[in-house]
Amino acid sequence: MTQRVGIVGYRGYSGAELVRLLERHPSVQPVLLDHRSEDGARPPIRRSSLPVRLPCTPESVINEGLAIVFLATPPEVSMELAPVMLHAGARVVDLSGAFRLGTPEAYSTWYKEAHNQPALLAEAVYGLPEASRDGIPGARLLSNPGCYPTAANLAIAPLVKAGVVDRAAGIVCDAKSGASGAGRKPSLKTSFCEVTENFSAYSILRHRHVPEVLMVSHLEEREFSFTAHLLPVHRGILETIYFRAIGVECPEDLLSVYETRYSAEPFIRLYEPGHAPDLRAVVHTNFCDLGLTFDARSGRAVVVSAIDNLVKGAAGQAIQNMNLMLGFPETEGLL
Amino acid sequence: MTQRVGIVGYRGYSGAELVRLLERHPSVQPVLLDHRSEDGARPPIRRSSLPVRLPCTPESVINEGLAIVFLATPPEVSMELAPVMLHAGARVVDLSGAFRLGTPEAYSTWYKEAHNQPALLAEAVYGLPEASRDGIPGARLLSNPGCYPTAANLAIAPLVKAGVVDRAAGIVCDAKSGASGAGRKPSLKTSFCEVTENFSAYSILRHRHVPEVLMVSHLEEREFSFTAHLLPVHRGILETIYFRAIGVECPEDLLSVYETRYSAEPFIRLYEPGHAPDLRAVVHTNFCDLGLTFDARSGRAVVVSAIDNLVKGAAGQAIQNMNLMLGFPETEGLL
Amino acid sequence: MTQRVGIVGYRGYSGAELVRLLERHPSVQPVLLDHRSEDGARPPIRRSSLPVRLPCTPESVINEGLAIVFLATPPEVSMELAPVMLHAGARVVDLSGAFRLGTPEAYSTWYKEAHNQPALLAEAVYGLPEASRDGIPGARLLSNPGCYPTAANLAIAPLVKAGVVDRAAGIVCDAKSGASGAGRKPSLKTSFCEVTENFSAYSILRHRHVPEVLMVSHLEEREFSFTAHLLPVHRGILETIYFRAIGVECPEDLLSVYETRYSAEPFIRLYEPGHAPDLRAVVHTNFCDLGLTFDARSGRAVVVSAIDNLVKGAAGQAIQNMNLMLGFPETEGLL
Amino acid sequence: MTQRVGIVGYRGYSGAELVRLLERHPSVQPVLLDHRSEDGARPPIRRSSLPVRLPCTPESVINEGLAIVFLATPPEVSMELAPVMLHAGARVVDLSGAFRLGTPEAYSTWYKEAHNQPALLAEAVYGLPEASRDGIPGARLLSNPGCYPTAANLAIAPLVKAGVVDRAAGIVCDAKSGASGAGRKPSLKTSFCEVTENFSAYSILRHRHVPEVLMVSHLEEREFSFTAHLLPVHRGILETIYFRAIGVECPEDLLSVYETRYSAEPFIRLYEPGHAPDLRAVVHTNFCDLGLTFDARSGRAVVVSAIDNLVKGAAGQAIQNMNLMLGFPETEGLL
Repeated sequence: MTQRVGIVGYRGYSGAELVRLLERHPSVQPVLLDHRSEDGARPPIRRSSLPVRLPCTPESVINEGLAIVFLATPPEVSMELAPVMLHAGARVVDLSGAFRLGTPEAYSTWYKEAHNQPALLAEAVYGLPEASRDGIPGARLLSNPGCYPTAANLAIAPLVKAGVVDRAAGIVCDAKSGASGAGRKPSLKTSFCEVTENFSAYSILRHRHVPEVLMVSHLEEREFSFTAHLLPVHRGILETIYFRAIGVECPEDLLSVYETRYSAEPFIRLYEPGHAPDLRAVVHTNFCDLGLTFDARSGRAVVVSAIDNLVKGAAGQAIQNMNLMLGFPETEGLL
Repeated sequence: MTQRVGIVGYRGYSGAELVRLLERHPSVQPVLLDHRSEDGARPPIRRSSLPVRLPCTPESVINEGLAIVFLATPPEVSMELAPVMLHAGARVVDLSGAFRLGTPEAYSTWYKEAHNQPALLAEAVYGLPEASRDGIPGARLLSNPGCYPTAANLAIAPLVKAGVVDRAAGIVCDAKSGASGAGRKPSLKTSFCEVTENFSAYSILRHRHVPEVLMVSHLEEREFSFTAHLLPVHRGILETIYFRAIGVECPEDLLSVYETRYSAEPFIRLYEPGHAPDLRAVVHTNFCDLGLTFDARSGRAVVVSAIDNLVKGAAGQAIQNMNLMLGFPETEGLL
Repeated sequence: MTQRVGIVGYRGYSGAELVRLLERHPSVQPVLLDHRSEDGARPPIRRSSLPVRLPCTPESVINEGLAIVFLATPPEVSMELAPVMLHAGARVVDLSGAFRLGTPEAYSTWYKEAHNQPALLAEAVYGLPEASRDGIPGARLLSNPGCYPTAANLAIAPLVKAGVVDRAAGIVCDAKSGASGAGRKPSLKTSFCEVTENFSAYSILRHRHVPEVLMVSHLEEREFSFTAHLLPVHRGILETIYFRAIGVECPEDLLSVYETRYSAEPFIRLYEPGHAPDLRAVVHTNFCDLGLTFDARSGRAVVVSAIDNLVKGAAGQAIQNMNLMLGFPETEGLL
Repeated sequence: MTQRVGIVGYRGYSGAELVRLLERHPSVQPVLLDHRSEDGARPPIRRSSLPVRLPCTPESVINEGLAIVFLATPPEVSMELAPVMLHAGARVVDLSGAFRLGTPEAYSTWYKEAHNQPALLAEAVYGLPEASRDGIPGARLLSNPGCYPTAANLAIAPLVKAGVVDRAAGIVCDAKSGASGAGRKPSLKTSFCEVTENFSAYSILRHRHVPEVLMVSHLEEREFSFTAHLLPVHRGILETIYFRAIGVECPEDLLSVYETRYSAEPFIRLYEPGHAPDLRAVVHTNFCDLGLTFDARSGRAVVVSAIDNLVKGAAGQAIQNMNLMLGFPETEGLL
């Protein structure tokens, strides 16, 4: 028996990916929820069928018996809708940054505005299953991780925990993302003529995704440098992570940290030492691919971490969390 | 009165760029030199005229009175041709890696084959004018720098020299290049279907351009981490360089190092602190653009350095060196 | 119970797509067949599993009980292997142009070499199901259509048959394909730097796919003009087809021809008049999308036909034919 | 002695290209004219200098003594500004469609709004020099041709005039343009994620550039079919033009029409029969390249015409017209 789930913000890139993936999921049935004025353009294909569309109201939640509502909306909209949907009886998976950080203070520091739902912020469970599944199955409000922090934390957290990183020397994460990471709203910065045959850095040392990495990987701000870049590709994130290894003599010493930590993880793939994933390897999948290189002479190491920003970095991970919340197999609809 | 100069390897991407730029140079006249079997395809445009083509022989050098011969050839071909061209009376500007490193031992370590012209290697002058013009005007054999090291050294060398870099913590250079950096020879790695909508790291921690950075910026191997990446663009290099600053309180402290060093340099452009060049800013120019960001809280700094790999990273810099060697204004034909 | 099928040429773009699709097909199990020296590179992902690989020999066919062997090989290799595989007891689906044309003479005219298997050419069944399913279920040797003709014939054949095209004025088919249509073998023409930010026409008026359109749509050579173009995209074909309509007063008159012909076809999608598919609509699917525009004032019409050259134009259509040959539902593994 | 010229709309793609080209022109000095709220962002490069910026007023025209004002603005803005600039004593080169068509009726038919400057429309001179230089030197208001019609008319007009085209069978022009043709204003249609790896037809059979082709090449609407397409490239137009030739036995018969007509034209390049230009050949130049193929068996011919939409299709042609208007050599600043 399938359950019904709602999607708000289904026209954005993450929301549309969510609909595509949920339509193939054997155990749920997606319902589109219209928040404010959604553009109602019908596709030009004759006789094509669309998922059900309803207004984004408590009545829709109640009448349809929606088990979960996904919010693929900006943080301020998520803060507005989350309490409404929860009150109507749905559980919420929020894909925005609204409920990711630990405190309202952290939120206002990095998002440059006050948080107006501190109680929900305190209640929200951060849903990066490979880092911790605690609390996900029972979460009422699940906060889906940011795209950059997903790729970064899956690479960094096990190494920091295992004590093989020289934190004093610092970790550098040089991150590159395709243009869909900037969302579907037209802007000069993401227009074709500005992006093609171009490449640029942005939010140098002050991206709002930084605190999620500090929080999950247990790092201090002075131990971590992060710069985001815009790649002339549609989708995909690749992060090149540099650190000085301690207590390590060969690449296998580092690899064994990952192997121990991730041996049972269905969505982590490890590469032979010296090899690294490219974007192609992960696009349209929910995998996070990790490849490490260690230079014994200098003691320096590099990990390349790659995900699809719209799948493992957004919609796919949201479904992975939904599977855990609804008691489905974790990989259902995602392989 | 114009002088004649020869180009070997004029069908490669660097060589073709060299011909394009030299055809507009007011003081020289390019002559194409055919080494072995060059493909003789005529362009399909009716009545188009081409530069003179001659066999790559000592006779051509002598008969044409070639002042300089540019070698846009692989290292092994440059090692073969440089002594021949020099003996015929031309000065040589070599765009390959054959004569860049300080010793035959360094060459064999990084290029994985023995150097067979150690005397010429000792004589060769490394031509990065903004780092040092010493020896360039009088050089008989000039070694044109690699593309990655040009962008890296112009960013790093002044900072290291000024003592504002915490070398113990290490410098990270995350470098990205367009596909023309891999040359014109067809290969699966640079075929359209493999590169488009993709992005990948290569030569992680062991690129053969690393020793040029150590040499010019006076760094130890353990102080420097470098990874190259292939961007889905035709041309351009952007490097994101991370370090911990010492004795620095604000971005202007770092910027002043560059301003002092580069105040009279026509091909270096500095950005306001917190801003950074994108590829678009430098492509088809001989500029190296530098933008720095400093985070006072963490003491960490980032410099973004961008060049066109075929211009400042190859053909343009070769002409800049030629201008110095032949006594022309340094910017002639390059603005 | 699943059946085993073999794939020769599994490293090419069509062959690799075939393997990807067959691995998800519920009723068959793919076996890779190594013809001559296939590059044996293992993927760098640890613990990844691969389909079985065997030499491409009669013994493999017999021992594995292969029901069908797919030849994703050049025409000359297909001519060599088809009789061998058939003799060993397998049925053959050939993706090359070896067995598409009606006579050895037509083959030598368009492919510029003699056909050395005229008996098999006579026996081969041309597998464009939407044009004719006759003979496909019982075929021993099935010839899979070319990519360009698939998009062209699905658009043109019904209109010609319905008598709504002014054949005397001629039909123009302006065809554009992504670079994967040229195959995986590296060449300067399909290298990234030559294709990106570029666009070019090739085989103007003399592409070897032309005779397939004449054959299936029943046109004379003087009635049909075809030009191929190379798009800077990975995959997808879009063809813009121009003709003068006769006996037609409004777009619906033309649309009804398609609706009648294709009402039961699962892989044809029709667009509202005045709308047209883009590549995005069909890439990674087995659909052929058709959109027509009719200008009553001038009597002129345009049909835009779009497919994925590697799916409906190659591997997907091959599986559609396999489904018919083995008695599976026609859409199995393709939706 | 240089003359001053003004540019309105200098932030758009055509306007910015105009500024770039005019800055290199030896005989003029560009002045930026701010119409309404132009975004005043300073470039982040330190010490960069910009052209003079003034408000777009009659006073600026008079005080600066502007010989010509270029309007790189939408048609409705051009209709508003042209009379003002003319009244202030400047001559006007308009890059919009406001003054291209012959009558107010034609304008309202194709541009879907009334023309409010019929007297200026009657006075305006259409500036396609290779079709006719009549009136250009003395024009007070010059209308710069559309990008698509420039490529189409340079290919078609001489053939129609020479009587070698079977007009009854019709001419098909399949046109493809890079995304800069849609202007700089952000929209979903030209956002990177929608354009990359995609290709689409638009304005099928009803593009507003059609009447310019009918007007210049002297064709009836029923004789001409035109479809525009959006290429995933920054700049460049390539048009593939199909017709049935009459009185022609070999490609040279057609080529001689072009050779006679264009023998003295500096910006037309002809290709050997059977060859065709690609976008790469013309991008960043003011050339229109023409390559024709003729199939004697079917009597059908194809001409491929390529230009840079921002140069010969807009800014370059505007400067070519300015050169004629101000008595400079026609190619000045354009080679």
